[in-house]
Amino acid sequence: MSDCIFCKIINGEIPSAKVYEDEHVYAFLDISQVTKGHTLVIPKAHHANIFELPEDLAGKLFAAVPKISNAVKKAYNPVGLNLLNNNGEQAYQTVFHYHLHIIPRYGNEDGFGLKWETHNDDYTPEQLQEIAETINKNI
Amino acid sequence: MSDCIFCKIINGEIPSAKVYEDEHVYAFLDISQVTKGHTLVIPKAHHANIFELPEDLAGKLFAAVPKISNAVKKAYNPVGLNLLNNNGEQAYQTVFHYHLHIIPRYGNEDGFGLKWETHNDDYTPEQLQEIAETINKNI
Repeated sequence: MSDCIFCKIINGEIPSAKVYEDEHVYAFLDISQVTKGHTLVIPKAHHANIFELPEDLAGKLFAAVPKISNAVKKAYNPVGLNLLNNNGEQAYQTVFHYHLHIIPRYGNEDGFGLKWETHNDDYTPEQLQEIAETINKNI
Repeated sequence: MSDCIFCKIINGEIPSAKVYEDEHVYAFLDISQVTKGHTLVIPKAHHANIFELPEDLAGKLFAAVPKISNAVKKAYNPVGLNLLNNNGEQAYQTVFHYHLHIIPRYGNEDGFGLKWETHNDDYTPEQLQEIAETINKNI
């Protein structure tokens, strides 16, 4: 896509710090480096988000993630690692070419964290079954 | 794995609100329901985390994610959707059977959010290249 910054990175119009590349997938450092080694994994073909990502390409993209994650681990020995993908502006997506963040973790005071409100008591088992069935019948 | 809660969910020893199932993948509602429709996607085979997940199984698992995400979208019309996977206790992993969270979003005041500190000025382009090469040579 001609005005997509990630397409320009893939075709070399914009420089990047490349971590990995195969036929369908490109991985490079996020310049924001939320934590050291913070890497983006993207499909070479332009698809805006998880809703538009073809299943076979999703599979090819994620098949590359264990080896990149293990390489990050070997390189920097983080205490953990988060994978994150944001879809939609209100879910923090800022570049509309699918990208998965690999975020190595170095403790509670590094650059990443979650707000995580649990609602275990808000739903009965029957209500959970109803939600699951509502999703399932849309597959 | 005999003492794994997710293995028990897969084999039916513990009930779950099932969203999707195929030969290699099982998806069900997270009882914490951080947001409505919050779903976990797991491999049927027991692997603790992304570091131990075989590449082919990673691909099969993620190939199921676009269709589940689209079904969540059709069912509940969220404004966005985050995918999250936590690896390691200090990265918020609590069950040590690989699981990917699908978290539909309903605005800034729903149950999910990020701490996201950027460090764009902390690294020169040369330093980013060095980090990328350090990771790459560990692949």
